[in-house]
Amino acid sequence: MATDQALAALQQVLGERLTCSKSERALHGKSESHFPMVLPDAVAYPVSSAEVQQIAEICAKHETPMVGWGAGTSLEGHGLAVHGGVVVDFSKMNRILEIRAADMDVTVQPGVTREALNEELRATGLFFPIDPGANASLGGMAMTRASGTTTVRHGTMRENVLGLKAVLADGRLIHTGSRARKSAAGYDLTSLFVGSEGTLGLVTELTLKLQGIPEATSAGICSFDRMSDAVNTVMETIQMGIPMGRIEFTCADTARAFTEYSGLEMAQAPHLLVEFNGSPESVAQDAERFAEIVADHGGSPFRWSAKEEERRALWAMRHNGYYAILASRPGARAIVTDICVPISRLAQAVEETQYDIAASSITGPILGHVGDGNFHTILLVDPDQPAEMEEAKRLSDLMAHRALRLGGTCTGEHGVGMGKLGFMAAEHGAGWDIMGDIKKALDPKGLMNPGKLVPQE
Amino acid sequence: MATDQALAALQQVLGERLTCSKSERALHGKSESHFPMVLPDAVAYPVSSAEVQQIAEICAKHETPMVGWGAGTSLEGHGLAVHGGVVVDFSKMNRILEIRAADMDVTVQPGVTREALNEELRATGLFFPIDPGANASLGGMAMTRASGTTTVRHGTMRENVLGLKAVLADGRLIHTGSRARKSAAGYDLTSLFVGSEGTLGLVTELTLKLQGIPEATSAGICSFDRMSDAVNTVMETIQMGIPMGRIEFTCADTARAFTEYSGLEMAQAPHLLVEFNGSPESVAQDAERFAEIVADHGGSPFRWSAKEEERRALWAMRHNGYYAILASRPGARAIVTDICVPISRLAQAVEETQYDIAASSITGPILGHVGDGNFHTILLVDPDQPAEMEEAKRLSDLMAHRALRLGGTCTGEHGVGMGKLGFMAAEHGAGWDIMGDIKKALDPKGLMNPGKLVPQE
Repeated sequence: MATDQALAALQQVLGERLTCSKSERALHGKSESHFPMVLPDAVAYPVSSAEVQQIAEICAKHETPMVGWGAGTSLEGHGLAVHGGVVVDFSKMNRILEIRAADMDVTVQPGVTREALNEELRATGLFFPIDPGANASLGGMAMTRASGTTTVRHGTMRENVLGLKAVLADGRLIHTGSRARKSAAGYDLTSLFVGSEGTLGLVTELTLKLQGIPEATSAGICSFDRMSDAVNTVMETIQMGIPMGRIEFTCADTARAFTEYSGLEMAQAPHLLVEFNGSPESVAQDAERFAEIVADHGGSPFRWSAKEEERRALWAMRHNGYYAILASRPGARAIVTDICVPISRLAQAVEETQYDIAASSITGPILGHVGDGNFHTILLVDPDQPAEMEEAKRLSDLMAHRALRLGGTCTGEHGVGMGKLGFMAAEHGAGWDIMGDIKKALDPKGLMNPGKLVPQE
Repeated sequence: MATDQALAALQQVLGERLTCSKSERALHGKSESHFPMVLPDAVAYPVSSAEVQQIAEICAKHETPMVGWGAGTSLEGHGLAVHGGVVVDFSKMNRILEIRAADMDVTVQPGVTREALNEELRATGLFFPIDPGANASLGGMAMTRASGTTTVRHGTMRENVLGLKAVLADGRLIHTGSRARKSAAGYDLTSLFVGSEGTLGLVTELTLKLQGIPEATSAGICSFDRMSDAVNTVMETIQMGIPMGRIEFTCADTARAFTEYSGLEMAQAPHLLVEFNGSPESVAQDAERFAEIVADHGGSPFRWSAKEEERRALWAMRHNGYYAILASRPGARAIVTDICVPISRLAQAVEETQYDIAASSITGPILGHVGDGNFHTILLVDPDQPAEMEEAKRLSDLMAHRALRLGGTCTGEHGVGMGKLGFMAAEHGAGWDIMGDIKKALDPKGLMNPGKLVPQE
């Protein structure tokens, strides 16, 4: 068997850092989401780019699939070895290689998590802003083009990876980008790899932009009778050029779940949670100008504070949103949707979604990144009730198609993985074929995370 | 002859909008830079995506090269048909298709120039921020990944194209991206096309991000004894999180050329020109905080103003920099370099460059985008003196290799074109081969702007 030969050769290189134990394979065969367990043939733990090259050379020779693995926090089953093969776990490649404070950039191995990086950066006065909620690995975040609550200010991984190193399917190591802040020297290979979900190569190094920790921050909360008033408030704030650090919204059901879970009292109504960063004067001024816009749109008085403990409590509540909503139906599992639309269509997309959910047999509170037009429904299902799983799937499909109708995308930040492959043709048309052509050019044997992202043959 | 057959078929489709006249071919055979004239076989003026598809189908059938043409302002000869064929001039595809003020985006045809777009946007309170100086076409700006003075705030074309339509070498029309502000749905084809210099397809439509016209702007100028003090001032300003709208620097020679050309009095010393955008209060506060940093680094008192006429005069002077420097040596031609390095290496790169130029037989004032680490030398040569042209070429090569040594790129914003092809292998290594593989996957016959960007066979 080709795979057995590959595993024997890999054992020579990696020793105990290649394992075929059932428990390790099971750990790398499940996802944070609702996808069924898929056991890989083995799990490899390389410690260097050179070892990843050796892994790729051996797997290429024996035509064995390679699937990257970060912190295992993917919501779309990106790391599942659906065609078997070797899961390459980057947890032992977790070193911060160089922090360059003067240039506000850092080079890391892909297994470093965002929290570990920010912990290490603290003394420098710098931080890495992209925050998807989970303590994901930076390699995984790059591969899924992750974003989160700070995207309205700092963009996604697309805007924050300056360059990377990747091992291709034939074992070649390439670098992309440079440490210059911009370049016009040829195709943007960095952007091609960011969001490629491990289908073009295994990323072994990343150079990331950093930001200065703001001198001051203010944060606050307000509620509205209607979702559209909340969205219009945000649109006007953006158009006025008031720079927001974060701007999140919740529906009334989410607000109730937050209240029950965190103890912070919220009216059962749509809410905005917002943060401003800058100097003490500017964050006060931004909050005051925002409060006026909120009042103009009929919102509740905007309560804000520049005190760190109050701000932390607010964002802890937001970050625990998934668990708060999960707790609102004991024993339930969550199916999380992720559409993103132009902001002018956001209120419509949310309201039509709420209508669909209200008419269904399940519940699904909503929260999201209103500044980006990206929102999630946390569809709560009993995993032992196939009818509920079906209903969630139907609602999720409705949402994805609605996003496309409204000029948006089926996934704002979670990626394609197992869950969104069925929408790629509808979203991209002939562009999806082009993705397949690029995949074939870089990985002709289809060994890098097969079964994902591109058209399947 | 295959080309003759192609031209006959194109004439059927385009009528008088296909021309083989010597004068039209000559207009599309010269560049703004020092490259020799290259006459295309014909010039086509399509008016729609459908016509561009027909052009591509005919050219594909007869294996005739297709080379896109915007406003002809490229500095690296991107539009020269070095393998013959048809130049596709987009000047008749210059309609603004839809302005969506609520979403702060716009869809345009590629022949719209940035000034025409901003003129049209004025009444909406929005503007398109990318400003390479020349009144380039937006299609050309996308294809060269243009940037300019506002990049420190708004990024390059990479960050400002939300999606596009392109006709591939076989005539297929694809769309990339969506109107959503972000997406994790597959390979980032938009970023692949932005900066591809017409080698992957002909772009027929662009959707661009817009910005709100700031409520207030302040701008000012200051000088330093040493370039390194100027650079350190900018680095500290960025690290403090003071948001700059523009930050430019000039060397002492450039300051003298500005004084002679514009009449605005500048000391013969390195200068910073800076702009802040925001509310009236914030731009005053930003200017005052910047003035303190300037003083800390030994700069001259920072003179600033929020008056529009003074600000306009300052940026008009900067935008005329190329002509001011050209006027400092009557009859000379300019060879413009374009390296970009990490900001911590910028002072070193500038000082070593000045040393090389001082030791050479020609002059070359320097100016650039200090916030991005990107600077230009305007090497002044007598075009009738081959020795001077050789000297300029030697200096330009030295600079490109220096940029790579310092972790940067051979071109920050002008693109590869004819001038930088020789540095692609050194900059990208095996990554350049990958660019070639992608090119072959999308354009197997090599008909889209052949002779450019990828390895030549």
